[in-house]
Amino acid sequence: MEKILSELAQLVGGEVIGDGGIKIVGIAPIEEARKGEITFIAHPRYLPKLTQTEASAVIVSPKVSEAEKPLLRVANPYLAFAKILGIYAHRPYEPRGVDQGAWVSPTAKLGERGSVYPFAYVGDHAEIGNRVILFPGVFVGDNAVIGDDSLIYPNVSIYEGSRIGKRVILHSGVVIGSDGFGFARDGRRSVKIPQIGIVEIGDDVEIGANTTIDRAAMGKTVIKRGVKIDNLVQVAHSVIIGEDSIIVAQVGIAGSSKIGSNVILAGQVGVIDHIEIGDNVIVGPQSGVAKDIPPNQVVTGTPPLPHKEQVRAVLTFPKLPEMWRKIGQLEAKLRDLEAGQDLKRKTSPQSSEDIHDPDQ
Amino acid sequence: MEKILSELAQLVGGEVIGDGGIKIVGIAPIEEARKGEITFIAHPRYLPKLTQTEASAVIVSPKVSEAEKPLLRVANPYLAFAKILGIYAHRPYEPRGVDQGAWVSPTAKLGERGSVYPFAYVGDHAEIGNRVILFPGVFVGDNAVIGDDSLIYPNVSIYEGSRIGKRVILHSGVVIGSDGFGFARDGRRSVKIPQIGIVEIGDDVEIGANTTIDRAAMGKTVIKRGVKIDNLVQVAHSVIIGEDSIIVAQVGIAGSSKIGSNVILAGQVGVIDHIEIGDNVIVGPQSGVAKDIPPNQVVTGTPPLPHKEQVRAVLTFPKLPEMWRKIGQLEAKLRDLEAGQDLKRKTSPQSSEDIHDPDQ
Amino acid sequence: MEKILSELAQLVGGEVIGDGGIKIVGIAPIEEARKGEITFIAHPRYLPKLTQTEASAVIVSPKVSEAEKPLLRVANPYLAFAKILGIYAHRPYEPRGVDQGAWVSPTAKLGERGSVYPFAYVGDHAEIGNRVILFPGVFVGDNAVIGDDSLIYPNVSIYEGSRIGKRVILHSGVVIGSDGFGFARDGRRSVKIPQIGIVEIGDDVEIGANTTIDRAAMGKTVIKRGVKIDNLVQVAHSVIIGEDSIIVAQVGIAGSSKIGSNVILAGQVGVIDHIEIGDNVIVGPQSGVAKDIPPNQVVTGTPPLPHKEQVRAVLTFPKLPEMWRKIGQLEAKLRDLEAGQDLKRKTSPQSSEDIHDPDQ
Repeated sequence: MEKILSELAQLVGGEVIGDGGIKIVGIAPIEEARKGEITFIAHPRYLPKLTQTEASAVIVSPKVSEAEKPLLRVANPYLAFAKILGIYAHRPYEPRGVDQGAWVSPTAKLGERGSVYPFAYVGDHAEIGNRVILFPGVFVGDNAVIGDDSLIYPNVSIYEGSRIGKRVILHSGVVIGSDGFGFARDGRRSVKIPQIGIVEIGDDVEIGANTTIDRAAMGKTVIKRGVKIDNLVQVAHSVIIGEDSIIVAQVGIAGSSKIGSNVILAGQVGVIDHIEIGDNVIVGPQSGVAKDIPPNQVVTGTPPLPHKEQVRAVLTFPKLPEMWRKIGQLEAKLRDLEAGQDLKRKTSPQSSEDIHDPDQ
Repeated sequence: MEKILSELAQLVGGEVIGDGGIKIVGIAPIEEARKGEITFIAHPRYLPKLTQTEASAVIVSPKVSEAEKPLLRVANPYLAFAKILGIYAHRPYEPRGVDQGAWVSPTAKLGERGSVYPFAYVGDHAEIGNRVILFPGVFVGDNAVIGDDSLIYPNVSIYEGSRIGKRVILHSGVVIGSDGFGFARDGRRSVKIPQIGIVEIGDDVEIGANTTIDRAAMGKTVIKRGVKIDNLVQVAHSVIIGEDSIIVAQVGIAGSSKIGSNVILAGQVGVIDHIEIGDNVIVGPQSGVAKDIPPNQVVTGTPPLPHKEQVRAVLTFPKLPEMWRKIGQLEAKLRDLEAGQDLKRKTSPQSSEDIHDPDQ
Repeated sequence: MEKILSELAQLVGGEVIGDGGIKIVGIAPIEEARKGEITFIAHPRYLPKLTQTEASAVIVSPKVSEAEKPLLRVANPYLAFAKILGIYAHRPYEPRGVDQGAWVSPTAKLGERGSVYPFAYVGDHAEIGNRVILFPGVFVGDNAVIGDDSLIYPNVSIYEGSRIGKRVILHSGVVIGSDGFGFARDGRRSVKIPQIGIVEIGDDVEIGANTTIDRAAMGKTVIKRGVKIDNLVQVAHSVIIGEDSIIVAQVGIAGSSKIGSNVILAGQVGVIDHIEIGDNVIVGPQSGVAKDIPPNQVVTGTPPLPHKEQVRAVLTFPKLPEMWRKIGQLEAKLRDLEAGQDLKRKTSPQSSEDIHDPDQ
């Protein structure tokens, strides 16, 4: 593919400084970019590389005003990079139709221009939108719904009744709609609580490899529009995740917890059940969240504290043995001092009991 | 389906207060229940809702003695709810037989009234019980055994020789019998220790999506009767988990550790190898267990402490920087005081060295 | 299979004490070994069992010089055990060829003596080496490469373009080459950064069940020769793991981090992005690594500290509430003492302000 620089500028809403007519054939990181390619500088610290790169043009922030080569100035260079990479990486979609080696129920509805690979299974009354790709080993249960332009990678399992939006990407091994983990104890024995709810996934959601999203006991587990979930994440029954939130790898969210919109949960965070995390919260890696978190906080650690507070506590942690020893020394010295004072009190007419706090 | 209230009472061993002849067509949570449905109150805090619900009857504990509508009184309302939901959620099983698109070894034994979906694979000499369901993408290795009425969801992999009991539920992506992680070092290189044991899973076990259970190096990895395991759990080689234990999502149990019966390991707990956790132990979320835990304990944290003790320590943790500062201040003040006392000692005939601890 | 003891000694580079001509039919742990089998003592604490075992011969370290039965003396008895078990556990490989129920692209290249099971899928232009086994449900994407003698267990997904070495073992549910988790924010919305790199896996790597390895954004995610990865591990985009490193279950390594060679990351460790961990580092279980770690360290905890230091801090942790209380008591007592001294100062002509530090 080939674009000219001014075309790219128009596509990302930027401005060209220099020759907008040069041809751009690709995009690459600043150290790897060759002649004919465009590159980007997302952080001022890389500005010195501007003079060294072989790239024919550079995406920069509005702070950069001149260079030896053409610039594409834009408010968010990283975003512009993502969009331009999207243009060059795009491959035209050619529908495969339904492969003879697939199994599609006669009662399922398939949209137009789809691709159903060998060994994909589509259950009774399932509804598959237009241009959906079902790779080998994908299981779509009875009555499940998948919206237009969704991309379901190999060996994904979608249990019956799950509802998946448009432009959703599910990576290999994802499980949608497995039973929530719900049991009532009968003495020591666990009696299964039938999980009769569903999972509902909004438009533009992407879910990473081997992540699991359980169906609700009753009602719905909901992943709202634009949520991005990384690999090996556990989302339990009846959880709700708000729009545009980002859930990093190996996070676990227990039953019925409600995550706001625009939230970031960093890797390996655990959230216990029935918790509410407000909008725009950021939780640092490995945090254990056992209480509600109000909106607009950045917290880390267990228990989660405001980030700076946590860092201070964590940095003091290694001093614990020294603190314990110092406290013992202080106690000993104080005993000495008190003994000394007592001695004086007994021998000195000036000492007086009324200076002592009676609570002690 | 339709039952009358007195029938339900009999099925759950409860007592009707009011009209036992009313018809009940379903069960729902107290806020969602409609006329004709039964609901339940598992916790006294929801008692005020008793007068508001539209439900036609309510499952309550023996503490509730009267209400405007018929009551089903039972010792454990939550358990009764689970059982009654099981009645209404039950769908009659219709065996599918072996689909033409499945692959079953001619030497495998299949029970009666089973369902083998397209793209399920059953290896040589495998033995599958009666009424077993093998969904698409299930792999059953050579010589594996699956007991009656087990339900194996899509894309489960059961390695050869694994032994699975009756009424077992394995959710999508579960792996049973993968090699344990065992290597001997030859200099820096790792030489694989062949894992020649098996996995044995007892009756009435349920295992969550994408959980992995490794085969023993030698002998067996054992999951005993009634154990319930959530999603994305790792059970290493030669681990034994006792009857009725509950293992929550993302727990990891390292090699040869032995978990007692009726144990609960909360989410993201890690247990190192060769540990023994006694019967009836509860371990809180994210705990790291590096030592044996005697029976009948409730512990949390890393290292695991009795729950209240851990909470106190965790709540003090954010004060660490303040503690460090205070200790510094105390030391400075004490130095002052000692200096003051020394000064007095030098200038005052009363002061005496014999009040000092010689260890200081 | 049957070997004589001196043959085994030769195969593992050891020395026979006693009758090298006795026949050995198998190998078992010391308590389970029967007549005709060989066993091993890897740790001196098991030496007393030497006289009790029924085994016909025992692998021992050079420190053991005599016993009632034949000995195989070798520098590393555990390694010798692994190798000899490998001999007895070995089953001759019989290629199955390509099953009629598999789907192999006409443009794919298959090596000799391979086994492609039913429901395995091999994409366009993929290259599969000699004696490779692709179990049911394996997906090999377009242009992927798999080296000789690799063993790919059921339901593994290998995305297009992935490059896998020789003698690699991928356990069930492994995902290789799923998209890295990369987004640029456009306001609150996440714009996908196309992940156009690949995954490259060296020779002799083994990867545990349901582990996920993401493709690089650009360039490669690299798992080097001899690395062993356990179950449910997350390796993010552009990570590099050096030769012979060992990554235990449920570890998560975030984007672009670089793990040295001969490193051990214990279970549930988390490593944030863009970190560098030096060669020969050992990181204890559940550690959160947020800073570079220089080579040749043994660290544990969060933040990771040298092991002994961490243990001391962790053991002091439960004393935090007591420390907080003691500090309060010390402060109160000091106030008393200071008040007492002040009182004396006011009443005593000897007291002098010049002994006070002006900073206080």
